[in-house]
Amino acid sequence: MAGLMLNKLGNTDFAPGAEIMRRLEALALFSEGGAGVTRRYATKEHRQAAEMIQVWMRDAGMSAYVDSVGNIVGRYEGLKPDAPALTLGSHQDTVRQGGKYDGALGVIAPICCVEYLNHINQRFPFAIEIIAFCDEEGVRFNSTLLGSKAIAGTFDMKALEARDGDDIEMADALRSFGVEPDKIPELARRPEDVLAFIEVHIEQGPVLEEEELALGVVTAIAGGTRLSAAIKGFAGHAGTVPMGRRSDALTAAAQSILAVETYCSSKPGLVGTVGRISAAPGAVNVIPGEAVFTIDIRAGDDALRRKAVNDVRGELENICTKRGVDLSIEVIHESDGCQCAPWLMDQLENALHECGYPAKRLMSGAGHDGMAMAHLTDVGMLFVRCEGGISHHPAERITDEDAGACAKALLTFIQQFEPLNEN
Amino acid sequence: MAGLMLNKLGNTDFAPGAEIMRRLEALALFSEGGAGVTRRYATKEHRQAAEMIQVWMRDAGMSAYVDSVGNIVGRYEGLKPDAPALTLGSHQDTVRQGGKYDGALGVIAPICCVEYLNHINQRFPFAIEIIAFCDEEGVRFNSTLLGSKAIAGTFDMKALEARDGDDIEMADALRSFGVEPDKIPELARRPEDVLAFIEVHIEQGPVLEEEELALGVVTAIAGGTRLSAAIKGFAGHAGTVPMGRRSDALTAAAQSILAVETYCSSKPGLVGTVGRISAAPGAVNVIPGEAVFTIDIRAGDDALRRKAVNDVRGELENICTKRGVDLSIEVIHESDGCQCAPWLMDQLENALHECGYPAKRLMSGAGHDGMAMAHLTDVGMLFVRCEGGISHHPAERITDEDAGACAKALLTFIQQFEPLNEN
Repeated sequence: MAGLMLNKLGNTDFAPGAEIMRRLEALALFSEGGAGVTRRYATKEHRQAAEMIQVWMRDAGMSAYVDSVGNIVGRYEGLKPDAPALTLGSHQDTVRQGGKYDGALGVIAPICCVEYLNHINQRFPFAIEIIAFCDEEGVRFNSTLLGSKAIAGTFDMKALEARDGDDIEMADALRSFGVEPDKIPELARRPEDVLAFIEVHIEQGPVLEEEELALGVVTAIAGGTRLSAAIKGFAGHAGTVPMGRRSDALTAAAQSILAVETYCSSKPGLVGTVGRISAAPGAVNVIPGEAVFTIDIRAGDDALRRKAVNDVRGELENICTKRGVDLSIEVIHESDGCQCAPWLMDQLENALHECGYPAKRLMSGAGHDGMAMAHLTDVGMLFVRCEGGISHHPAERITDEDAGACAKALLTFIQQFEPLNEN
Repeated sequence: MAGLMLNKLGNTDFAPGAEIMRRLEALALFSEGGAGVTRRYATKEHRQAAEMIQVWMRDAGMSAYVDSVGNIVGRYEGLKPDAPALTLGSHQDTVRQGGKYDGALGVIAPICCVEYLNHINQRFPFAIEIIAFCDEEGVRFNSTLLGSKAIAGTFDMKALEARDGDDIEMADALRSFGVEPDKIPELARRPEDVLAFIEVHIEQGPVLEEEELALGVVTAIAGGTRLSAAIKGFAGHAGTVPMGRRSDALTAAAQSILAVETYCSSKPGLVGTVGRISAAPGAVNVIPGEAVFTIDIRAGDDALRRKAVNDVRGELENICTKRGVDLSIEVIHESDGCQCAPWLMDQLENALHECGYPAKRLMSGAGHDGMAMAHLTDVGMLFVRCEGGISHHPAERITDEDAGACAKALLTFIQQFEPLNEN
């Protein structure tokens, strides 16, 4: 068990920070290129990461396999076979040019915990399952939480018809990846087989760093709505159509982008982002006849978010009507906020205290696989401080100490875990 | 001479409108796909069009070849060999999803005139040269007027290092196209070999249609400046970075786009367009850390344009400074306005009157190969009415009658052409 300092007398020498960081660096090598880490769903890099993660799982005494949606699943049996599982994990995919920690930390930290438990020969009345979810970010097919939805039994098989930027259908991409997407419905777990889902994740925000805390207990995950907006104007020659006679789709989009920013800046607890945009035909000397962009709106309060989505739609319609261009808006993703289970928050808090850490409670502005898993079981989350609150960026960073801290707290949580209802 | 009705007694039966339209439809078939016509520089479609145009030129009694920059050049000898030439023509390339008439009309109409002259065995003390310029729109390599610059002797060989969206170098693209770019400097004409350059082109604006005129005589071509602007902010997670702590490159770009629109709308005679934009990393759930866009500013008055470019730069710098993002702006193209030669305007006017058309004089808001040819010789332009002033769009349209009218006026102009200085 290279890299983990062990001591069978309690966990006092369980100091896996450096080893977790080494593995995070290793996993980051499976990237499509460019700055940071780019590991999209059902790519060669996803397959490479899956091989690496399975090796780590097996080294930790777990059985391991890639399931038919592309999740990497490891199982550490309990004292009796087929015991219900405490499920841990996070996602292995990244955004384009993302960081090394978002998702990956929540896969590697629990593997290190199980490796330690296996080494000290500790088993429980429950099994431990670790899942490295396949597609949380949804970068390739504009979809999200595919892996956790498959596990929770809410996977919509129509998602398989989605096409990526190269016009490759998701079902075909999965077959090339080496799995059988037709079997995805069989992945759904029975609720009685899962005791809880716990995810370790970097905070991706500034709260823990500002309060000088390594760890926090998540209370809820903000809900989010993603829209795709398409504006149709009329293309024209950039030199000959007077300003007053244009139906420029891109200037309408620009005004819409500022409207999203202004509206979301005016309400505390609300954030709104336009992350993608394109204008067609896309020549320097042609007035754009079409503009397409995305809008991502989130809030901890579902009612606040729903009102924001409605209000922003209304503002965009006004802008486009006044400019004489057509607007169509499609909801491409919508998820309500997800409350973490109080009994899991309490047990996480106890584990943090046991390890000597304060147990700050905070909300998650980012979405997580827990939102899908909440349809199956109770969910808890442990947040880890990250530098400057930066994520989805090559500069994403955590410290060795904090990596060790989250694993230590998670190990203690597992060892003291009491299911809500004894099975 | 299929399609052209002929009568050797004058040109009264020269009615080539339908034949010109038929050839324009044929040329439009050489398109990369999608709506309208897309024929970019040094592509397979450019090569196909070159073959077709050479056939038409040879059928018209001209020698024809593709030169080393990709221009298609036809020559109809004068009464004596090696006589100086009256040069006619326009460009054969298009914007993405452009129309069938922009450029192509100015290639096909003069070919039909020469075909008629050849049929009635009329030659002049001067030769007639027709050039279908290779790259006026500059869509593929973000460059313009390459073909006419090569003829005028102002081609910058550094342009050959430009790369297209697939990272193909222009020099390599030209070699694949089948020409030897190293020989481009040899294309430069001696001023004494060219008597004048006359271009027939659709107006691309609403003036002639509004005044119910088929044709117009161009007085000047507006100058233009093209900028490439790059904004660097800081990418971040769309759910976790509060609105007030963002360095969003795309919202800064949106505000800049509106600033261009507002400024250029405030000054008569000025137009400003943002035709291309991209944001990186370009994921729905990531705050854009980078945004890149183009700005195209034009005016008939060079001083007005230069002031506009400076003022817009200043406004964008203010916007970006206030938002805490970095801005860099590069001039990617700049051309001063070009005055048409009064003696050519007068001879064009006479030809129009001879054919029974009023000779409205008007300015060109669009740039044309004449801007480059003006460095070599005197330039004149004949504008043809187009429907709704629409161009750079699949809906671009002219009538058979107007196509015939421009050819008839051009034929008369050629037959009555008096060089400024007899050679």
